[in-house]
Formats: sequence, C-alpha cells, structure tokens
Amino acid sequence: MEHTLRAFDEELALLKAELSRLGGLAEAEVSDALASLITRDPRLAQQVVERDVKLDQLELQIEDRATRLMALRQPVAIDLRRAVAALKLSANLERCGDLAKNIAKRALIVSETEPMAPLMRPIERMGRLVLRRLRDALDAHSRDDLVLAQEVWSNDREVDEHYESLFRELLTYMMGDARTIAPCTHLLFVAKNLERIGDHATNIAEIVHYEITGEQLTARPKLETMEG
Amino acid sequence: MEHTLRAFDEELALLKAELSRLGGLAEAEVSDALASLITRDPRLAQQVVERDVKLDQLELQIEDRATRLMALRQPVAIDLRRAVAALKLSANLERCGDLAKNIAKRALIVSETEPMAPLMRPIERMGRLVLRRLRDALDAHSRDDLVLAQEVWSNDREVDEHYESLFRELLTYMMGDARTIAPCTHLLFVAKNLERIGDHATNIAEIVHYEITGEQLTARPKLETMEG
Repeated sequence: MEHTLRAFDEELALLKAELSRLGGLAEAEVSDALASLITRDPRLAQQVVERDVKLDQLELQIEDRATRLMALRQPVAIDLRRAVAALKLSANLERCGDLAKNIAKRALIVSETEPMAPLMRPIERMGRLVLRRLRDALDAHSRDDLVLAQEVWSNDREVDEHYESLFRELLTYMMGDARTIAPCTHLLFVAKNLERIGDHATNIAEIVHYEITGEQLTARPKLETMEG
Repeated sequence: MEHTLRAFDEELALLKAELSRLGGLAEAEVSDALASLITRDPRLAQQVVERDVKLDQLELQIEDRATRLMALRQPVAIDLRRAVAALKLSANLERCGDLAKNIAKRALIVSETEPMAPLMRPIERMGRLVLRRLRDALDAHSRDDLVLAQEVWSNDREVDEHYESLFRELLTYMMGDARTIAPCTHLLFVAKNLERIGDHATNIAEIVHYEITGEQLTARPKLETMEG
C-alpha cells in the first residue's frame, strides 16, 4: 500500500510537470504567433504552425496519464480532482495552441499584403493583455495560487472591451478602403482568436479554483457580448 | 458488492441519458439559431440565447455525476472510458450551444439590416450539412455505433470546403458594396461558428470511437485550412 501510494504521488507529480510543459509551450505559441504578425515575420509564423503538433501529442500523453491514474489508484477528493482537472487543463491548453497556430497562418497571409500599421498597435495591446492573463492563469496552476486564479477570473471583461474597440477600428478601416477588406477579415479573426485565448485563461483559472477547493466558480463575470 | 454494481450501472445509465438530453438540446440550439438567421426571426433568436443557460447547467450536472462516479466505484476499462468520455462529450456539446447562441445573437443584429438574400442559400446549405454531422455523431453516441462514428470522422473535409467557398462569396459581396461590410462580418463569424460546430461533431465521433474501442483515432483527416 505504501508502495502504491508513493507510485501515485510520483504519477501526480509527472502529470503536473507535463501540464506545466504544455502550458509553457502554449504560452510560447501565442507569444510567437503575435510577434510574427506584428513584425511581419513569416519564418517565425511557420515555426509556430509546425510546433503545434507537439502540443497535440503532449495533450494525448496527459490524457493517457490522467486516465491511467484514475484506473490505477482510484483516487478520491483532491486527488481525483487533480486528475479530472488535468484532462480539462490539457484540453484548454491544446486549444490555445490551435488558436495560436491559426493566428500564425493568418500572419503568413497578412505579411504578403500592404502593411496596416495603424491596426497593429491595438492588436499588440490586446495580445499583450491576453498573454498576461494566460501567464497568470498558468502561474496560478503551478503554484496552486487561489488568489491569483480568482484575480484572473474576475478581470475577464478587460479583453472583451479591447475586442469590441478593435472590431470597430477594423470595420472603419475596411469601409475606408475596399482593398483592405480581405486582409482585414484575417485581422478580425486574429482579434476573435485572441479573445478566445483570453476565455481559455478564464477557464484555466476556474479549473484551478475547482481543483484546489472542490467548488465551482459560477456566474462568470462576462459581458453579454459576442462571445463564441 | 452486487448492490454497488447495480448502483453503478444505474449511474452510468443516468449519465448516458443526461448526455443524450444535452445532445438533443445542443442540436435544437444549432437548428433554431440557423432558422432564426435564415427566416429573420428575432423572437426565435432570442429563445436560443435564453435557452443556452440550460445547456450550461446540464454540463455541470454531467461533470458532477461523472466525477462522483469515478470516485464512487473506481471504474476500470470500458467503464472508466465512459466516465471520461462523458466529461469530454459534455464539454463539446456545451461549446456547440455557445456557438449556436453566438449565431443567434448575430441573427438578431442581421435581422435589422437589409436582407442579403444571395448569401442565405450557401449559409443554409452549410448549416444543414453541419447539423447532419452533429446528428450523426450524436446517433453514433446513443447507439454505440462505431461505423457511423468512423463515417462522421472521415467526412470532415466537406464542411471545410463549404466554409472556404462561403468565405469567398462573403468577401466578394463586401467588396461590391461597402454598406454590407458590417453585416457581412457577422455572417463571416456565423460561417466560422458553423465550421467549429462541424469540428465538434468530429470530436464527438472521435470520443465515441475511443469510448468503445479504447483506441485514439489520430491523424485527423483535416484540410490544412484556417481551422481555429
């Protein structure tokens, strides 16, 4: 029994380490995708696209480990929550990677069109905000930091406000010059993807809260905007 | 022990029933959201928006039940996979509901602008295709139908092709008349949301396959398009 318990703790520690690694990869994907768009760097964008497969593999690995862990040691209470949380966290992080890959693909296309300098500053601002939320959520996970998780969760609106304002700027730009319509639709989706990554940061904060306390954070403080 | 086993089977049956109910609700949300857009029916759109909260509640209920089930009876093999699959299926279905709600919100806005009749037909076609995929995936789940799950999974590309063609039609429309830019951006996101619902149908098919066989369907047959 003693032996099994130790094996279980080791498995949990491995699970946490793999999740942290997936978190780090997801953060790098988002950060590089954004940089490739802002600096018009197709080589970096290509790297982001190619690296995404690593995140997919790591997600499957984490799912396998979490599922085996539940079968192996039939955990209860906090240990069960850790295993369930691992499944959910990895799904959210893998999805952040997908969204970053999509931003990078659009960066590849946009890098071949005329620069749209006035739009890059608000995109960069929104991107930095989203990245900070993702980092904070991942820190909350690494350190089991309930206060930080709660903070990420309750600052959800800031991203929505940036998104709404960026959306309006993009529309104005498109209406001012029809030649910008095609590239601007890519930027619209970039903005939407950033908003979604912000939502995943909120999800991660919720999962961390649930993992530690066993209680759901409900009634998410989201503006009734165009989320989806 | 006999008693516990029976209780466990009953819990599993309840879990499956709740999942089927969530599946039915998600399907209705997508179907009604699409209808509200095509027929310009703000009342129906409003119903879709309001009904979404039921899906959120049901997802939490399913999560609770699946987690308790894992703690209660420490299931192995197929039973463990059923509990894990329930967590993943409910997350995918709740997300379909979110995407439908988003389509309905955009239907509300678009219903107040000039009708864009030529665009409604391709949107309806894509919507019907996506709905059929979602229904098939849900049927595969209800009936443990491996063949149908595999079929849904391998026909993933059809939706992407519809999306790409609809995207081009929307761009052409916007470039032809700057006044249509704002409403058309809503339709762009509707198309993207439908594509995403199609992706969730693929996910559901993958989960059903894993639940039954214990094997992952990997190397998803997706076009390298703008997924995200």
